[in-house]
Amino acid sequence: MTVPALYGVIPPLVTPLSADGSVDEKAMAELAESQLAAGVDGLFVGGSSGEVALLDTEQLTAAVSAAARVAAGSVPVLAGSIETGTRRVIATARQVVAAGADAVVTTAPFYIAPHDDEIIGHFAAVAAAIDAPVVAYDYPAGTAQRLRPHVVAELHRQGSVIGLKDSSGDLVTFREILRLVPDLPVLTGSELLADTALSLGAAGLVPGLGNVDPEGYVRLYRAAKDGRWADAAAEQDRLARLFRIVSVADTGRIGFTAGALGAFKAAMVLRGTIPDGRVNPPMLPLQQDEIDRIAGLLADAGL
Amino acid sequence: MTVPALYGVIPPLVTPLSADGSVDEKAMAELAESQLAAGVDGLFVGGSSGEVALLDTEQLTAAVSAAARVAAGSVPVLAGSIETGTRRVIATARQVVAAGADAVVTTAPFYIAPHDDEIIGHFAAVAAAIDAPVVAYDYPAGTAQRLRPHVVAELHRQGSVIGLKDSSGDLVTFREILRLVPDLPVLTGSELLADTALSLGAAGLVPGLGNVDPEGYVRLYRAAKDGRWADAAAEQDRLARLFRIVSVADTGRIGFTAGALGAFKAAMVLRGTIPDGRVNPPMLPLQQDEIDRIAGLLADAGL
Amino acid sequence: MTVPALYGVIPPLVTPLSADGSVDEKAMAELAESQLAAGVDGLFVGGSSGEVALLDTEQLTAAVSAAARVAAGSVPVLAGSIETGTRRVIATARQVVAAGADAVVTTAPFYIAPHDDEIIGHFAAVAAAIDAPVVAYDYPAGTAQRLRPHVVAELHRQGSVIGLKDSSGDLVTFREILRLVPDLPVLTGSELLADTALSLGAAGLVPGLGNVDPEGYVRLYRAAKDGRWADAAAEQDRLARLFRIVSVADTGRIGFTAGALGAFKAAMVLRGTIPDGRVNPPMLPLQQDEIDRIAGLLADAGL
Amino acid sequence: MTVPALYGVIPPLVTPLSADGSVDEKAMAELAESQLAAGVDGLFVGGSSGEVALLDTEQLTAAVSAAARVAAGSVPVLAGSIETGTRRVIATARQVVAAGADAVVTTAPFYIAPHDDEIIGHFAAVAAAIDAPVVAYDYPAGTAQRLRPHVVAELHRQGSVIGLKDSSGDLVTFREILRLVPDLPVLTGSELLADTALSLGAAGLVPGLGNVDPEGYVRLYRAAKDGRWADAAAEQDRLARLFRIVSVADTGRIGFTAGALGAFKAAMVLRGTIPDGRVNPPMLPLQQDEIDRIAGLLADAGL
Repeated sequence: MTVPALYGVIPPLVTPLSADGSVDEKAMAELAESQLAAGVDGLFVGGSSGEVALLDTEQLTAAVSAAARVAAGSVPVLAGSIETGTRRVIATARQVVAAGADAVVTTAPFYIAPHDDEIIGHFAAVAAAIDAPVVAYDYPAGTAQRLRPHVVAELHRQGSVIGLKDSSGDLVTFREILRLVPDLPVLTGSELLADTALSLGAAGLVPGLGNVDPEGYVRLYRAAKDGRWADAAAEQDRLARLFRIVSVADTGRIGFTAGALGAFKAAMVLRGTIPDGRVNPPMLPLQQDEIDRIAGLLADAGL
Repeated sequence: MTVPALYGVIPPLVTPLSADGSVDEKAMAELAESQLAAGVDGLFVGGSSGEVALLDTEQLTAAVSAAARVAAGSVPVLAGSIETGTRRVIATARQVVAAGADAVVTTAPFYIAPHDDEIIGHFAAVAAAIDAPVVAYDYPAGTAQRLRPHVVAELHRQGSVIGLKDSSGDLVTFREILRLVPDLPVLTGSELLADTALSLGAAGLVPGLGNVDPEGYVRLYRAAKDGRWADAAAEQDRLARLFRIVSVADTGRIGFTAGALGAFKAAMVLRGTIPDGRVNPPMLPLQQDEIDRIAGLLADAGL
Repeated sequence: MTVPALYGVIPPLVTPLSADGSVDEKAMAELAESQLAAGVDGLFVGGSSGEVALLDTEQLTAAVSAAARVAAGSVPVLAGSIETGTRRVIATARQVVAAGADAVVTTAPFYIAPHDDEIIGHFAAVAAAIDAPVVAYDYPAGTAQRLRPHVVAELHRQGSVIGLKDSSGDLVTFREILRLVPDLPVLTGSELLADTALSLGAAGLVPGLGNVDPEGYVRLYRAAKDGRWADAAAEQDRLARLFRIVSVADTGRIGFTAGALGAFKAAMVLRGTIPDGRVNPPMLPLQQDEIDRIAGLLADAGL
Repeated sequence: MTVPALYGVIPPLVTPLSADGSVDEKAMAELAESQLAAGVDGLFVGGSSGEVALLDTEQLTAAVSAAARVAAGSVPVLAGSIETGTRRVIATARQVVAAGADAVVTTAPFYIAPHDDEIIGHFAAVAAAIDAPVVAYDYPAGTAQRLRPHVVAELHRQGSVIGLKDSSGDLVTFREILRLVPDLPVLTGSELLADTALSLGAAGLVPGLGNVDPEGYVRLYRAAKDGRWADAAAEQDRLARLFRIVSVADTGRIGFTAGALGAFKAAMVLRGTIPDGRVNPPMLPLQQDEIDRIAGLLADAGL
C-alpha cells in the first residue's frame, strides 16, 4: 500500500453532470486537467463540494475514474466515502479504490450518536478492511460529530489514518492536534483561513473555492511556503471577497448547500471550466439574477 | 401499487446478527413471528432501532426478505432507506422493494442543508422513482432536519407519501400536521408518549421498545382504541419504567445509540426472543453489569 | 409565609407602557381587572410575555404593585425574578415581594454553564433568602438550561419550590416529573398543548396568549376539569389558529420575540384591553400591515 | 467623554471574595496592583472571568471602585454591564461608571431572540444613555447571540462603540470585521489563539488566564508587537498547556464555569496573588485533588 504525500493545494472537485444526470466524464477529466495545469498537488473527488452526499455509487466511481485517469500517478487522487456507518463506508471505499483512488477520505459515523472510542474503532475498522490509506475528515456541519484532538492522536498512533482534513472551523482544536501529532499532515478545508492555517502548521489546503480559482490558492500556498505572509494574506483577502459567491442565493428559496455548490459550478461555467452548472437532486438551481451577481463578483476578483 | 393501511403497532425491528456479522435470517424470521404472535399490525425493518445507519445493503435486504417471508402479506412490511441524498435513497429503496417491502420509509436529505422546497422535491422524486409507496420519517436526532407541517401537507397533497413517522418529540408540530392533513396516517416513534399521541389522533405506534415488550404496546394501543385511557396510561407508565433500560449504559464509555440499541437486544436475549445481542460496528457492546441491570428492570416490569 | 395554591389559568401578563417608557400603572390595573373578570385563577407579572428581560427594576416593581393592588388577595400574584445568578435573583425577588408578589418565579442560572447540583443549590439559596415561596421556571428557549426531572424532584423534596412552570415544550420530561412528584403543581407555559398538559396532570396554564383571549383559556381549563375533553380540544384548536398572530411579523425585519410580544399587545389594543401597544427597547414595533393581519386573525377566532 | 485607547493586555480580572461573600476590596486592589506590575495595559472588571453573571450590583461596583482607585488613570478600567435588556444594561452601566469605569463592556441582549437591527439599536441606546464609551462583547457561549460583522460595522459607523471584545472563537468573522472596520480596536478573548489573533490584526488580548500568568501574556503580546512570531508562538504553547487547569474539575460533579473560574482562583491562591479562592453561589468549589492537579500544571508551566 503506497502512502501518498499530502500537502499543498488539493481541491475538492465539483462533479460535473450531463443533462441526463450522470457524471459528465469528459468534463470531469477536463476539470482535472485544468486543475493540474494550475499547479495543484492532488485531487479530491467526492468531497462535500463534489455533492458527495447526493451521488450514487455509479456517479462517484465514474468521477473517481475520470480524475484518476488524468492524474495517472502524477498527483494523488483522494476520494470520499461519506456514509453513516462502518460497513457502508467500507463498501463504498472499496469501490472508489477499485476506481483508482489513492486514498479514501471519511468522517466519523453519523445519524447515530457515537462515543469517541467508537469513532476510533470506526476508522480502525475501515483502515483494516480496505486496500488504501485513510484520511480522517472532521466536518461537523455535515455530521454533527467532532474528531477531537485525542481521537486524532490515537488514530495516528494506531496507524489508522495518514492525515486529517479539518473542516471544523475551530482553530483551537486544529492547533491542539498539531501539538499532539506534529508529524500528521493536516489539511484545512477553510476557504477563508487558508493562510492562517498554513502559518499554524497545516500541510495543505482543500478549498471548495479552489474549483473556481485554483491559481489563487496555489499562489497563496506558495507565498506561505516562501514565508511571504503579506502576499499570502493579500491573496486570502481577494479570495475572501470572491467567496461571497456562496451567499448570493436566497436561502428563503433554496438551501445553503445548493446555493454554495451551485455558485461554484455557475462560476466555473462563467469561467469556461465546465460546460454545465447543473446540480444533483434535490438541490434547486440558481436563478439568472443570482448567476449575474456571481459574474459580478468574479469580475471584482479579477477573473 | 398497493397502498398498505398504516395503523396500530408497527415495531421497528432490531436486526439480529450472526457471529460473522451477517444478518441471522433465522433469528430475524423468528423475531417477526413472535411479533406477529403478539398482535402487531405491521413490521418495520431497517429503522433506527434496526441499526439502519450501520447496515450495508446486503444486511438490509436480508433482513427485509426474512421479515417479508414471515409476514407473507398478513401485515405490511415497511423498510427503511436511510441515505443522505435522493439518488442514494432511490437506489436503496429499489433494493428493499425487490426484497419484499410493501412501503419505504425515508427521511429528509441530510449531511447537506436543504430548503423545505428541496425536501419536498426529494420525496416527490423518490416516490416517482420506485414501485412502492413512501412513508416520510421525521427524525431530527439523526438528520438535524425537520419535516415541517406545511412540508408534510404538501407531500400529502402531491400524493408523494402515504404516511408520516414522527420521531421528533414535538407534539406541537404533530398536532398541527393532524389539523392540516387529518386523513394522513401519522405514526409516532415515541416510546413514552404513545397514549398521548393516540389521544391526539395518531394512527399508530412505532416504538423501539416494542421489540422488548410488544404485548405491552399492543395492550396500550387496544386500550386507547377502546377509549380506556386510564388503562392506556397505566400501561404507558409501566413501559416508561421499562424504557429505563436504554439509559443503563455508561455514556462515558459507549455512545448513547450503542447503549440504547444494545439494551433492546440484551433484553430480547434475556427474554429469549433473539439468540445473540451483538451489534454492528462501530458500536461497542454492553458490559455484564449493564446487562444485569437490564435484567432487573425487566423483572420490575413483570417480564 | 403563605403558600398560594397554584392551579387554573394564570396568565403571564404583558406590561403596558406609557409614552415615556414607564409602566402605565392604570393600564396595568385595568388589565388585571379584565383578567379577573374573565375568571382567571392568578396573575403572573414579569414573565417572558411581560418582557421581563427588558424591564428595569422600577418597571418591574411598578407592574407588580399595580397587579397586587387589584388582586388584593383574591387570587395569587406571581412575579418573575429573571436574572442570571443567585445573588441577582435574590435582590430582585426581594423587591417584587416588597411590591406585593405572593410568590416568585425564577429560572436556572444562565449565561454560565451550571451543573444540576448547582441549579439545585441556586433554588435552595433563593428560597432561603426571600420571604415568599418560589416557583421554578423551565424555559430553555431563554436560558439554554433545562430543569431535569431529578432536579425538580429534589427541589420538591427539599421544600425549595412550591411549583413548576414548564415552558420546555417537552412532554416526556413533563410527564416524568409528574410521575416523580405527583403532588407538585406543574403549570404549562404552552399555548398549544394546554388541553394535553391538563389531561396528563398539569395543575394549570400560563399561556401568553391568555392576554388576548383569557376567556378562551378559562373555557378550555373548565372543560378539562369537567372531563369534557372534546370541548377542550375544540377550544384548543381555535386558540391554535389565534396563536398564528405571533408569526405575522417578518423575522427578516424584527426579532421573533418582538414579533410575538408585539402581537399580543397589538391584539389587546385592537380588543380594547390596553391603550397602547408599545414595547420596550430594543424591540422594534410591528408595522401597520402586520397589525392588520392580526386583526384578521382575531376576527377569524371570533374576537 | 474621554475615549480610552484599547490595546495590549487587558485581563478580565477575577473578583476576590471575603468569607461573608462580599468583594474583598483589599484583595481586589492588590490584584490590580500585581497586574499593573506585570505590565498590563488595562483592567477589565466584571467580565465573564469576574463571575459577572453572579455578582450583584454592590459587588460589581465595589470591584470596579477598587480597581479604579489602583489604576488611577494610569491605564483604562473597563467594566462589564452584563444584563439581558437595554434598560437593565443602562442602569448597571451608570453604576459602574459612577464607580470609576472608563468604559463599559456589554453584550447583545439575551434571553430574548433579537434581530440584528434590534442589537444595533440596543448598543446605540446604551451609548446614548451613559456617560462613558461602550465596548461591544461577542460571547455566544453566554448569550446564544452573535455580533455579526455587518452589525459591528454599523455600530462603528454610528459611533456607538469604541471597540469589540471578540470571544466567539470564530476567526472567520473576526477577520471579516477587521476587513470591514480596520480602525476599530478588536480585542480577542481567546486564551489559546492570542498570537494568531494579533497576527491577524487584533489590538489586544483579554485572556482569563491572564489572571494566573499576566507576565506570560505580556511577553506574548510584546513578542508579537516586535514581530518575533516564533517567540509569541512558544509562549502561546506554554500558556496552552497551563490553560489545562480549566479542565481539571469533574463536570460530572460541578459545572464547567465553576471548574474554570474556580481553577483561575485556585491557581492564583497557589501563586499568592489572592488570599481566598472562593466563588459566588451557586457555583460549587473545587476539591483538594483538583487543586493539587492545578498545582502540578502550574509547576509544569514554570510558575
